[in-house]
Amino acid sequence: MKRQNLRTAALILCIFSYLLVGAAVFDALESEAESGRKRLLEQKRGELRRKYRFSADDYRELERLVLQAEPHRAGRQWKFAGSFYFAITVITTIGYGHAAPGTDAGKVFCMFYAILGIPLTLVMFQSLGERMNTVVRLLLKKIKKCLGMRTTHVSMENMVLVGFLSCMGTLCIGAAAFSYFEGWTFFHAYYYCFITLTTIGFGDFVALQKNEALQKKPPYVAFSFMYILVGLTVIGAFLNLVVLRFLTMNSEDERRDAEERASLRRARNNIHLKPKEESPASAAAVPSFCTCLCYRPQVCGSPAPSHPETLSCHTNPVYYNSISYKIDEVSLSTRGQTGSSPGSTLSSSSPRCRQHPRLRRKSI
Amino acid sequence: MKRQNLRTAALILCIFSYLLVGAAVFDALESEAESGRKRLLEQKRGELRRKYRFSADDYRELERLVLQAEPHRAGRQWKFAGSFYFAITVITTIGYGHAAPGTDAGKVFCMFYAILGIPLTLVMFQSLGERMNTVVRLLLKKIKKCLGMRTTHVSMENMVLVGFLSCMGTLCIGAAAFSYFEGWTFFHAYYYCFITLTTIGFGDFVALQKNEALQKKPPYVAFSFMYILVGLTVIGAFLNLVVLRFLTMNSEDERRDAEERASLRRARNNIHLKPKEESPASAAAVPSFCTCLCYRPQVCGSPAPSHPETLSCHTNPVYYNSISYKIDEVSLSTRGQTGSSPGSTLSSSSPRCRQHPRLRRKSI
Repeated sequence: MKRQNLRTAALILCIFSYLLVGAAVFDALESEAESGRKRLLEQKRGELRRKYRFSADDYRELERLVLQAEPHRAGRQWKFAGSFYFAITVITTIGYGHAAPGTDAGKVFCMFYAILGIPLTLVMFQSLGERMNTVVRLLLKKIKKCLGMRTTHVSMENMVLVGFLSCMGTLCIGAAAFSYFEGWTFFHAYYYCFITLTTIGFGDFVALQKNEALQKKPPYVAFSFMYILVGLTVIGAFLNLVVLRFLTMNSEDERRDAEERASLRRARNNIHLKPKEESPASAAAVPSFCTCLCYRPQVCGSPAPSHPETLSCHTNPVYYNSISYKIDEVSLSTRGQTGSSPGSTLSSSSPRCRQHPRLRRKSI
Repeated sequence: MKRQNLRTAALILCIFSYLLVGAAVFDALESEAESGRKRLLEQKRGELRRKYRFSADDYRELERLVLQAEPHRAGRQWKFAGSFYFAITVITTIGYGHAAPGTDAGKVFCMFYAILGIPLTLVMFQSLGERMNTVVRLLLKKIKKCLGMRTTHVSMENMVLVGFLSCMGTLCIGAAAFSYFEGWTFFHAYYYCFITLTTIGFGDFVALQKNEALQKKPPYVAFSFMYILVGLTVIGAFLNLVVLRFLTMNSEDERRDAEERASLRRARNNIHLKPKEESPASAAAVPSFCTCLCYRPQVCGSPAPSHPETLSCHTNPVYYNSISYKIDEVSLSTRGQTGSSPGSTLSSSSPRCRQHPRLRRKSI
């Protein structure tokens, strides 16, 4: 079975299993508490109904009123500040739902607003996140230099650690701030920040909904907006570092397959293969055979560079150091001097690629 | 200013402007209606309070009860079916909030569940989406062949059109189904599908919340789950086709810059440049100079292939046809025969790259 199909099938199976496990655990954790809360609420409601002797219709009307009035209790949701807050929740896909368009025109505009805004925002966060990673990488290098360390090379592990600590730091700062301003416990504020910055946005905890903060506390409003946007950038930077490469795995494999087919066709039509010199496997900095095949064939014939990050990789200048790429050192340098046209570099390596299927990138 | 920094700054400016415009429009569309609704609700609440003569405390208690009882009205939310539904909303980041963990243990598990589940789900949807695009591409090719068209080549525009129609079709099918099962208007059901499949998930409209559907209508529950997962795949396929390439723009430019610096260093240290033959610019199928520099230097010296998609591009086998890559035809074939080591292909082209800065990829 083709690699891409196998990978996709495995991922689907993973997700379904993950959902099943999650459902079972949430059931175990929440189901009993839900029953308890329901019993208590029914008991209290019964007491109030007996005290005031509501008619069934009036009680239903009261329920409807309370539910509809709920957003209004938090103050004006659709003045400029509230609308800006709402617009943020749309284009970042957080979507708390604390406010949602009540008019049909608002719903239509919301949909068009999201169609353009969401991709634009995705690209912006990834772009800014990548810049952030570059700055962090340079800083780490300078720090290592100042500390007089043996090597100033910034590894993937260094970057992942700093990224992870940044995410935790961002969550903790937010938790401290919102627990102070909103009167939540630190844990609930942390949970709110987590649910917000992962863009899940349940809406069970929503900032700026107490004491008409949207209209009366502009500095707090500005802080909340900046926190969400900066926090999403930090998360975006971490995702750019760790996850983005996996999003293009299938496409890369398709491209490599297509290039192999093309080069085989060219080899059959045009190229006469010449014997190549064999030389020992190069150092760990040399990327996988198939990465080399696609991205840096000329490297394979040249000495390993002293600064690996200058051979920046697929999606990230230190990509080749990532865990998914620390695989077999490959006798890439066996390609050595190819002599004739550059085209032969690709085509002449293809039979070797066929002979060594186990040298293809180990991926998910 | 460096290209990546300029691009990032432009994107940030774009987003802030977009938010300001959105806020102004939502304010204009919703603010007045909000005032109207608030007045009406206060009036009706006043009538009920006068009729039953609630004390202030009792009324607040009643409000609290109604709000807390609201999820329970929709049936058991945390039995297995409800928990599975909730788990879907977590890992897809839809996050309706119709149900949210009530216990602290549930909140903690929810966070860990999301940390692993969200990236896994992202990768799965992109992987499956890419497979879907590949199948569609093959089908389109077969259809063109059957129709006896002059060329069976599937362009990016074809793919984008089919992708867009698939998204619209998915939304319409969902709208028809949910308007039937939930008793919503077609427009509201369409709005619900849109808000769900963009993972915004306000929670103003949530399926499976009427008539205890989660427990009593297993086929409808299964349909809803499958609709969400398949719908997200279709959206994911469209994003994979259109947006994914833009997520790695900065990283690619960084890598190219690093490779240029590395090749210049090598050129200064090792390589003697030889004069190159000039030949006319090749056809539109040849990608940008800088893409070629990084991915397929050997192509530059070889004749343009008859089937461009075999030279599959960065993230997608027909990438090079994308709008962002239809740029200047470049005299890439001027690199021609390089003779010596493959390394010279890269280094010898760098001075030309310097001479033609306007030939760099036009990107956002």
